[in-house]
Amino acid sequence: MSQANSAYQQLVARFSQVAHFEHLNALGDWDQATMMPPGGSEARAGAMAELAKHIHQLKSDPQVGEWLEYAQDETLTSTEQANLREMQYHYGQATVVPSDLVEAKTKQAYACEHAWREQRANNDWQGFAPNLKKVINLVREEAQVRGEQQQLSPYDALLQKFEPGMDSQRISDIFNQVKSWLPQLISEIRAKQQSQPNIVIPQYSADSQAKLGRAVMNLLGFDFNHGRLDISSHPFCGGSSGDIRLTTRFDENDFTSGLMGIIHETGHARYEQGLPIEWRGQPAGQYRSMAIHESQSLFFEMQMGRGNGFLSLLAPLLKQHLGSELSLAQLQQVYSRVEPGFIRVDADEVTYPCHIMLRFEAEQAMVSGELAVDDLPDFWDQQMQQLLGLSTKGNDKMGCMQDIHWPVGELGYFPSYSLGAMYAAQFKHSIEAQLGDIDNLVGAGKLNDICAWLQQNIWSKGALLTTDELVKHATGESLNPDHFKHHLQQRYL
Amino acid sequence: MSQANSAYQQLVARFSQVAHFEHLNALGDWDQATMMPPGGSEARAGAMAELAKHIHQLKSDPQVGEWLEYAQDETLTSTEQANLREMQYHYGQATVVPSDLVEAKTKQAYACEHAWREQRANNDWQGFAPNLKKVINLVREEAQVRGEQQQLSPYDALLQKFEPGMDSQRISDIFNQVKSWLPQLISEIRAKQQSQPNIVIPQYSADSQAKLGRAVMNLLGFDFNHGRLDISSHPFCGGSSGDIRLTTRFDENDFTSGLMGIIHETGHARYEQGLPIEWRGQPAGQYRSMAIHESQSLFFEMQMGRGNGFLSLLAPLLKQHLGSELSLAQLQQVYSRVEPGFIRVDADEVTYPCHIMLRFEAEQAMVSGELAVDDLPDFWDQQMQQLLGLSTKGNDKMGCMQDIHWPVGELGYFPSYSLGAMYAAQFKHSIEAQLGDIDNLVGAGKLNDICAWLQQNIWSKGALLTTDELVKHATGESLNPDHFKHHLQQRYL
Repeated sequence: MSQANSAYQQLVARFSQVAHFEHLNALGDWDQATMMPPGGSEARAGAMAELAKHIHQLKSDPQVGEWLEYAQDETLTSTEQANLREMQYHYGQATVVPSDLVEAKTKQAYACEHAWREQRANNDWQGFAPNLKKVINLVREEAQVRGEQQQLSPYDALLQKFEPGMDSQRISDIFNQVKSWLPQLISEIRAKQQSQPNIVIPQYSADSQAKLGRAVMNLLGFDFNHGRLDISSHPFCGGSSGDIRLTTRFDENDFTSGLMGIIHETGHARYEQGLPIEWRGQPAGQYRSMAIHESQSLFFEMQMGRGNGFLSLLAPLLKQHLGSELSLAQLQQVYSRVEPGFIRVDADEVTYPCHIMLRFEAEQAMVSGELAVDDLPDFWDQQMQQLLGLSTKGNDKMGCMQDIHWPVGELGYFPSYSLGAMYAAQFKHSIEAQLGDIDNLVGAGKLNDICAWLQQNIWSKGALLTTDELVKHATGESLNPDHFKHHLQQRYL
Repeated sequence: MSQANSAYQQLVARFSQVAHFEHLNALGDWDQATMMPPGGSEARAGAMAELAKHIHQLKSDPQVGEWLEYAQDETLTSTEQANLREMQYHYGQATVVPSDLVEAKTKQAYACEHAWREQRANNDWQGFAPNLKKVINLVREEAQVRGEQQQLSPYDALLQKFEPGMDSQRISDIFNQVKSWLPQLISEIRAKQQSQPNIVIPQYSADSQAKLGRAVMNLLGFDFNHGRLDISSHPFCGGSSGDIRLTTRFDENDFTSGLMGIIHETGHARYEQGLPIEWRGQPAGQYRSMAIHESQSLFFEMQMGRGNGFLSLLAPLLKQHLGSELSLAQLQQVYSRVEPGFIRVDADEVTYPCHIMLRFEAEQAMVSGELAVDDLPDFWDQQMQQLLGLSTKGNDKMGCMQDIHWPVGELGYFPSYSLGAMYAAQFKHSIEAQLGDIDNLVGAGKLNDICAWLQQNIWSKGALLTTDELVKHATGESLNPDHFKHHLQQRYL
């Protein structure tokens, strides 16, 4: 039992403790969004704040720092070393920012977000700007501290919160490539789709949509013994790996978006349900990065869900559960419509990167100080005109006020969405090279073969490999945006 | 701010912290019983054990003991002193039993309960007895330690877990009085009810029963802004005061028991929702004792719910939500049927005390060592024959194996049920002395007047008074079982 008292074993015990409390945190979040009566919010807020404080204490405990140092000299297997690397990452993230700065930012972000909910509805940029300035100033301070500690540029230090190992130079290179072909591609697709007839979507009750949703989740292999589906105003995939709480919302006037939302969230869910059980509760057993998480939801939604093979399975389910008579051709048209719009979360996969590239440049420039918050609306308007031919002048609620990320001080997150889309396309390319066309596979009922590839190459790896190792191991190369370009060309041209 | 660092203020902060974690504990329990998919149980068990350990550490921290000593010398208001008294009680309960004994008992009780679920179904006394012996031996050890620390007899020390200030002599005196008149009363009621016609209860869907249930909860003043109703296999009232999670189950073949279950749990719920908000999160803001809690559920179910006034309000709701044509007379008959039976939880309020008196004597004798576990089935059979004229010979699943309390090592709890029934009758007596007949009040739509009395005299007092102070303050006398006798005579003869 000498090993039992090793520093590494102490760390394993501590991170397992953290995971137990994070289980409760996930439960509290889910309940709040789905079940909690309105009057319960005050008591819940108190309990969740206490819990967050406790989790932070457990993670940032100086004792953890000592164990991490001792453990480096211990004899560990290669997977234990990977777990140790992830422990170091989490400890680093928990301790890098001084707690008074964390507190100041939390407080300011809370106030800013709270006011933003109304200011956005009222298009009140004048009211919003002073609050956002305070948040951005604190984020710049945070980025400065993080950068110094990690010997990175301030913005790159923020990226590490979501994409360990990624840097802004690499993202810029990728986005510059995308910019070289995307506007032209959008024009061509728009021209091609111009003559499409308008499709009227009939109304269906939330109940029958929920039945359809569960049938689709079953088809996609969601494990209802380790998860459930409920309703919340903002869909998410929460809970813990052994008990995934997926949520959606149903619009009785348009079932198509809620249904695609379920397919998207099921991708997140299967990733979580497929993480390595033997590493459950340890950092190495967690998802790799936000972009890899998003790659799984986008693989389900974009690569599989909107493909002909899946839509051909969907059509009879629509008939069975909704009584819908939409044909495969109509479904294809509905689910491959490309149209520049103001709102990121409503964007199709072709125009989506434009929304991200704009935000990536804006937040880099705000963190470096090149872009003042006061100049943000103009910057936004110019970029939107350039990228998507739309003006947001005087319409900030449809522009720079639309997202929650900045009001809550989460800069550095946006790139993960588009990186995820690119990883998804790259995974599709590798799967097709090994197993054949995924539309054919799905259409022939061989969805399990595709999931087996994802299970083996992505899900079961947890965070045992770095993102780059994972992607190279799975596809033979680092992130390569060409696959995304080919995916779009193949589907939409 | 000198007060801010007083020992008392430190205690307030600590107990508030405990309350936050207990909020999460209640949420975990509720979710487990209502929402959690089966496969989630392993992760949940780990998280709940970690949480329980943390809560115990916070409560039993030696620092708390020191603060409690210092606080005695501080200048406190009388309510603060009451809060301090309750803090001492909770600290005492958390520290009185050595942790290795707690652990041994928890482990043994878990194993015993787990096996019992199947053994009970199979009437397997031979399999159950050795497990129960181990649990009872550990309970005796626990009772010994508790008794020594608190200078009480072992069994009285167990009672303190549920009924602070109560002792077995007092309960024996009360139960001896009850025994002197109850058997005769049961005979008389049985004779009177002999000629009642049989009433056939129609089938109703769980959905329509749930709608009826919510309507009845609304009628009883349940605050849905601070609570909700869900389904679980064993009904309970959980959650926290600001967010009460009430559960029930629906039997499509007999709506009457599920409905009365909802009324019962709503009594618990209104007590919790009515506890003093200004003391929320502090020991003084909690329910007074298990018997007082039970007095509120029984007041709702027995004093109000089965009375003519309430049933006259119920009849139209049954018609509205179920389409039921049951008349007031039929409802009265269904809800005042007295019939000796084997199962405690199915017993009517008249025969119920027999089940409790039997268990009270058995557990006292087991703790003192006078009754060996092996002799329990014979003891049970003799007592049941004597009290209710029923034999459980060879039928232990309907006898001494029916309850979960002993398998999980919870001895000392049973008396609270009957004490609660007696407190409920005593409260009714006082309310009627002040406001008039409660059946008339309820029937005239003045249920709020009754609840206002309960709010003022019971709910809003939390644990600020001792049980005896509370009861004297509300009714002018200590617990007096005569009111229970009069209630039964008045309703059933």
